[in-house]
Amino acid sequence: MSLPIDNRPVILTGDRTTGPLHLGHYVGSLRNRVALQHTHQQFLLLADMQALTDNAHDPEKIRRNVLEVVYDYLAVGIDPTETTFCLQSALPALADLTVLYLNFVAVGRLERNPTIKTEIQLRGFERDIPAGFLCYPVAQAADITAFKATIVPVGEDQAPLIEQTNEIVRRLNRQVGHEVLLEAEAMIPIVGRLPGIDGKAKMSKSQGNAIPLSASPDDIRQAVRQMYTDPAHLRAADPGKVEGNVVFTYLDAFAEDRDFAEELKEHYRKGGLGDMVVKRRLEDILQALLAPIRERRARYAADPGYALGVLRQGTLRARERTEATLTELRAALGLFSLT
Amino acid sequence: MSLPIDNRPVILTGDRTTGPLHLGHYVGSLRNRVALQHTHQQFLLLADMQALTDNAHDPEKIRRNVLEVVYDYLAVGIDPTETTFCLQSALPALADLTVLYLNFVAVGRLERNPTIKTEIQLRGFERDIPAGFLCYPVAQAADITAFKATIVPVGEDQAPLIEQTNEIVRRLNRQVGHEVLLEAEAMIPIVGRLPGIDGKAKMSKSQGNAIPLSASPDDIRQAVRQMYTDPAHLRAADPGKVEGNVVFTYLDAFAEDRDFAEELKEHYRKGGLGDMVVKRRLEDILQALLAPIRERRARYAADPGYALGVLRQGTLRARERTEATLTELRAALGLFSLT
Repeated sequence: MSLPIDNRPVILTGDRTTGPLHLGHYVGSLRNRVALQHTHQQFLLLADMQALTDNAHDPEKIRRNVLEVVYDYLAVGIDPTETTFCLQSALPALADLTVLYLNFVAVGRLERNPTIKTEIQLRGFERDIPAGFLCYPVAQAADITAFKATIVPVGEDQAPLIEQTNEIVRRLNRQVGHEVLLEAEAMIPIVGRLPGIDGKAKMSKSQGNAIPLSASPDDIRQAVRQMYTDPAHLRAADPGKVEGNVVFTYLDAFAEDRDFAEELKEHYRKGGLGDMVVKRRLEDILQALLAPIRERRARYAADPGYALGVLRQGTLRARERTEATLTELRAALGLFSLT
Repeated sequence: MSLPIDNRPVILTGDRTTGPLHLGHYVGSLRNRVALQHTHQQFLLLADMQALTDNAHDPEKIRRNVLEVVYDYLAVGIDPTETTFCLQSALPALADLTVLYLNFVAVGRLERNPTIKTEIQLRGFERDIPAGFLCYPVAQAADITAFKATIVPVGEDQAPLIEQTNEIVRRLNRQVGHEVLLEAEAMIPIVGRLPGIDGKAKMSKSQGNAIPLSASPDDIRQAVRQMYTDPAHLRAADPGKVEGNVVFTYLDAFAEDRDFAEELKEHYRKGGLGDMVVKRRLEDILQALLAPIRERRARYAADPGYALGVLRQGTLRARERTEATLTELRAALGLFSLT
């Protein structure tokens, strides 16, 4: 008896395990994953090795957050019978492929990668860039190709990483003379990145401007109260600006009733709508969204054995798949096999 | 019942599998390995992945030469019951450790490595250096530390690679707070590098100036006849120069009777000793040395299954050892474990 062949397109997605996930992740990726798992073969990588590339001094943080992220995934409705959860460091084929691919990429090419250039500046690495950080686009190519993923959801700024992957794919396919690896396509979310509650471009735990998925009703209330609005909108009667106003950005991202959101915007623009009223509307929406997530998350977090089992089982499945790719590529290249 | 603990110091040595071995390897490393295997735990790495760092375009050459090198090892008397033969690409812990260590080494440090700088020039890589080539000192650190080797026989020019290894060892030991990895010492051979028969500094198959271990009696005769001597020594009666005279360098390296070699040198210096006479003496010595090696090599090469078995068994042993180190280091760093 053999399993039915799964012809659905393969998606590889995941997160670095550096902290619990927040509303930014929910908007940018989690809710898409919940939808995509029914129409795609979805692999969800807990990227603890990638997290090390800029957290080598603090592996304990990475370890501690592995199960936290699994709880987040389960809580938002990613279903382990539909999606394969797997741990990057427990898939040796990924390291093997990384080391192999490094021989097919020039150092100069890595240094020219726009994503890497930006992130080197952001992190203040200069000449002290860890080699693992410079090489992480190659490690990511290993991840994507090992799963034979053809769709990779990424932020707009990360599209160059997919280009790097496809360069490696083409280089190797050309050398072996057939399509042993598959090119991948970036899937860029329609809804842009959710700003932090302070209006900064990126919601991030380390910036203290994030609403985690586990936020309590009080946390949510506080966060919405603190949200950056239109600083010139001093009296409710005055006209206000909607652009760059975090409360409206969130309403756009979370209000299911689009007409209602548009009406509020118009009213605010004209004047006569106070910040507190809009914030109360947004708070209701976020409380309603997060209540069931928080409750489910607490239940999963109370039973770490279950999450660990999900991760173990998925990792075994992922190991088979990634080892098969490694074996296939090695044979195609004509490397020595002991078996 | 448990195996007796082996307290002998651990040596890691090996060769890139890019071609059969020659007399240069014999003098520089092989005969030491035959001696050291009785007093040390010796691991012999067939470095097919390292060979890829500058042969990515031709993996077939690397594959083809894996067993050739095993035949060479067996033929010179490296004993698989004393020495563990193992294949680099079949030890996933080495790739895992490489990817891990890359996070602890700055790109600038790799670029300043003197061995790498020289080899980049030698190979004409310039800005097209494959990332795998720039990173190979890190891969070598992974090899050495994975086996917990404390002694690594290397040429003088490769001592900086051991320094790089020890920097990684100290960095990680400092972070975890105890000695999870061991520092290694370079063991530099007393006999310097054997020149090619043309007098060039390095004997190398690609330069056509090498005498392979499998050389036929005719090959050996031809090679000795072509050997570079003193170009000013035109008549036997004239005094001749011994320095830079390849025939005498070889006599120094191979004559077991030291007094005899010294007498020949003195005679040559004074005059009255023709090149042909000295060459005949050297040829006798090389024929006697290589005849049993060639015969044993032919017997091993006629039975590839035996060499493959040796490599398989050794690789299994090596896998246990290297996986144990990886597991120990991950636990010490506090990375997540699924088991």
